[in-house]
Amino acid sequence: MKTSKELCLQNKNQSGAEILCIGSEILLGNIVNTNSQWIAEQLAILGIPHFRQTVIGDNPIRLKEAIFEASNRSEILITTGGLGPTPDDITTKVIAETFDTPLEERNDILLDLKNKLRSKGRNLSESQKKQSLVPKGAKIINNYSGTAPGIIWSPKANFTILTFPGVPSELKEMWVKEAVKWLTNNNFSKNIISSKVLHFAGINESSLADKIPHLLKSNNPSVATYASTGEVKVRITAKGKNSEETNKAIKPIEKELNQLTGLKCFGVDHETLEEVVVKLLLNRKETIAVAESCTGGAIGSKLTKIPGSSKIFYGGVIAYNNSIKQRILEVPEEIINNHGAVSKQVVEAMARGVQKKFQVNWAISISGIAGPTGGSKLKPVGLVNFCIKGPETLISWEERFGSNKTREDIQKLSVLNALDRLRLSIIMEN
Amino acid sequence: MKTSKELCLQNKNQSGAEILCIGSEILLGNIVNTNSQWIAEQLAILGIPHFRQTVIGDNPIRLKEAIFEASNRSEILITTGGLGPTPDDITTKVIAETFDTPLEERNDILLDLKNKLRSKGRNLSESQKKQSLVPKGAKIINNYSGTAPGIIWSPKANFTILTFPGVPSELKEMWVKEAVKWLTNNNFSKNIISSKVLHFAGINESSLADKIPHLLKSNNPSVATYASTGEVKVRITAKGKNSEETNKAIKPIEKELNQLTGLKCFGVDHETLEEVVVKLLLNRKETIAVAESCTGGAIGSKLTKIPGSSKIFYGGVIAYNNSIKQRILEVPEEIINNHGAVSKQVVEAMARGVQKKFQVNWAISISGIAGPTGGSKLKPVGLVNFCIKGPETLISWEERFGSNKTREDIQKLSVLNALDRLRLSIIMEN
Repeated sequence: MKTSKELCLQNKNQSGAEILCIGSEILLGNIVNTNSQWIAEQLAILGIPHFRQTVIGDNPIRLKEAIFEASNRSEILITTGGLGPTPDDITTKVIAETFDTPLEERNDILLDLKNKLRSKGRNLSESQKKQSLVPKGAKIINNYSGTAPGIIWSPKANFTILTFPGVPSELKEMWVKEAVKWLTNNNFSKNIISSKVLHFAGINESSLADKIPHLLKSNNPSVATYASTGEVKVRITAKGKNSEETNKAIKPIEKELNQLTGLKCFGVDHETLEEVVVKLLLNRKETIAVAESCTGGAIGSKLTKIPGSSKIFYGGVIAYNNSIKQRILEVPEEIINNHGAVSKQVVEAMARGVQKKFQVNWAISISGIAGPTGGSKLKPVGLVNFCIKGPETLISWEERFGSNKTREDIQKLSVLNALDRLRLSIIMEN
Repeated sequence: MKTSKELCLQNKNQSGAEILCIGSEILLGNIVNTNSQWIAEQLAILGIPHFRQTVIGDNPIRLKEAIFEASNRSEILITTGGLGPTPDDITTKVIAETFDTPLEERNDILLDLKNKLRSKGRNLSESQKKQSLVPKGAKIINNYSGTAPGIIWSPKANFTILTFPGVPSELKEMWVKEAVKWLTNNNFSKNIISSKVLHFAGINESSLADKIPHLLKSNNPSVATYASTGEVKVRITAKGKNSEETNKAIKPIEKELNQLTGLKCFGVDHETLEEVVVKLLLNRKETIAVAESCTGGAIGSKLTKIPGSSKIFYGGVIAYNNSIKQRILEVPEEIINNHGAVSKQVVEAMARGVQKKFQVNWAISISGIAGPTGGSKLKPVGLVNFCIKGPETLISWEERFGSNKTREDIQKLSVLNALDRLRLSIIMEN
């Protein structure tokens, strides 16, 4: 074993990057550190080796130690958090102190801050001025949607710090718009690691794994499965000199997976089910409306998230209360009385009602028991009825997601199930 | 600044615990490190100070370094991951090597492994035997649902390592059933740390910080602000002997914060805006419906997430297409032609329409330009019109969230803004 001195004074034993997330809220367990995961993924995409992640609270002494240690181990340190205007935002100050460098007030940042605040009808406060201080010689990473900029700064040879705010949307935008370019131009992007993620619905993780035991054993590319609520992901990861090489390695595995699983794979990488459905409808120039009870507008909300969905999504009725199912969707009262609001008959009437009222090609309807109360022996919590009506399609079905599931999970599973069956229905009409 | 040697050779400058999560899948960004957050929360509950979290991949040299460093800084090191049977599970072996201690095969673990596998009709494989090796002198933490046990081991004075598997359910069970008792019996559980989080809407982080400079400087309780999209959180953290003492310390700060910010604070701890709105309406026995254009059902979906919301939420109309605004909500065509779909006149007509059709006490309507296209100079992306109609209330307003915002952020900000104004409107009618 090396002595502490040896361990400490040895020269850099690794190139590559470290991630340092700063914030007492992480150490107190108040938030999950999703920033580390996101940055780690981005580093893998760029092919920048990444060997360590650290979290430190808003404490200057411990933060200084962590920055100093990283500067002896790595070429790049990426920090998140602590750039804001409040007294516990200490990142920039401590970084400067660690390398005995003064902070200087930057007029360009000050001007940018004033402009941003003016557009919101506000003035620059004393505490916000702090955000214009950066170590002498540092380059700025512009913050497009928030106020605090980040820095790119090399306080010593072979070591550069990049700082980002802790707000995920600001961090991501700054990374994509500025950091990627800098890291690539400065040749940090080496042997690249590429992943392709295939998304599956309507199959569980172990059934999928049982279809591909030989693929799960392969090395480069490697294949791994991940399960989340209502969805299974398969990640194919390849290492290579460039994206041409990794794509060539991934392609045959992807093809084999698709052959083995039929239409179960609904999308790749960041593609979502709602995006796929919107694309299919745009291609067919067809329109859709929703009639939602237990999901309360969640399908409409998902479809509306996709830019351009206004061309195919007309809207819908959230028929949470039974009186609305009758009055707005014209579901006959006797159907509700005879079969119950959660029934094949009611969802079929809801789909017919919304299709007619909204004058659309496709209609989707949902009625179920999301719980935690409202279940019975015959119709337990987790029972959900669905109907899809298309130009030539009329299908209705029920799912029993299980009464041990949370309200949130039942709603989420209902949305995914409905969208996936809609996807398959549209494909089948082609 | 201290030299590297000074930083390295100094004696322990902190007591308390560190968390070390081991696994290349975290460094590759394949999974979010939720284990760190969970353990951090548990440490806070036990009142064990916690100053650093680290992630290292399945690499023996870097892992050894990280363990050694932690042993010079902390009293307790909690590790997760790397206890399984596969070749990349190296945690126990590296821990033993770091402190020059041999591993010994433990018959009690071997027997337990055999029994567990037999109950599943399987035999102990060579690779699984590895899990029965622990450093000489280590205590075992039983694994109740999985195979790999953890250890509690003090390789040197004032330093103890506790190891856990990376599977969250196994880790949690082992923590609750064994680790808590050990940590408490060995007096690591000191002053407890309690946090209360207050949620604010309708105020930005720096305006809030400027109202409470004196509180942000206080030490015990400490006060910190955090911004996320459309919301600001203030965390009050107190240390004390027991929860009575910490609650007593937090209470006056909470009161002062509320006095200084009026009605801006909408909830505490895990309370959400939609939960607060549902509670207010339940108290007043009043009902609500929504008329959503650019948010596509997201407000309805939020309200429906709350158990019991069926008593107050009747449903709504997703009027994404203008024809639906006319046909279903009875917005006169000339209003849309004269003022545009995103206008004060249209949202007022939408709110009136849905209130009348759904026969509810409250109606909320939204129409805006979520982008990325569809904006003009006069009506840019990010412009959203709102209306709330209640028993005695009729307010309409517009927000300009900024055309640099993403579609997702504009939709999210619209929902939060609408729900917060609804909350205030209901309170005002009281």
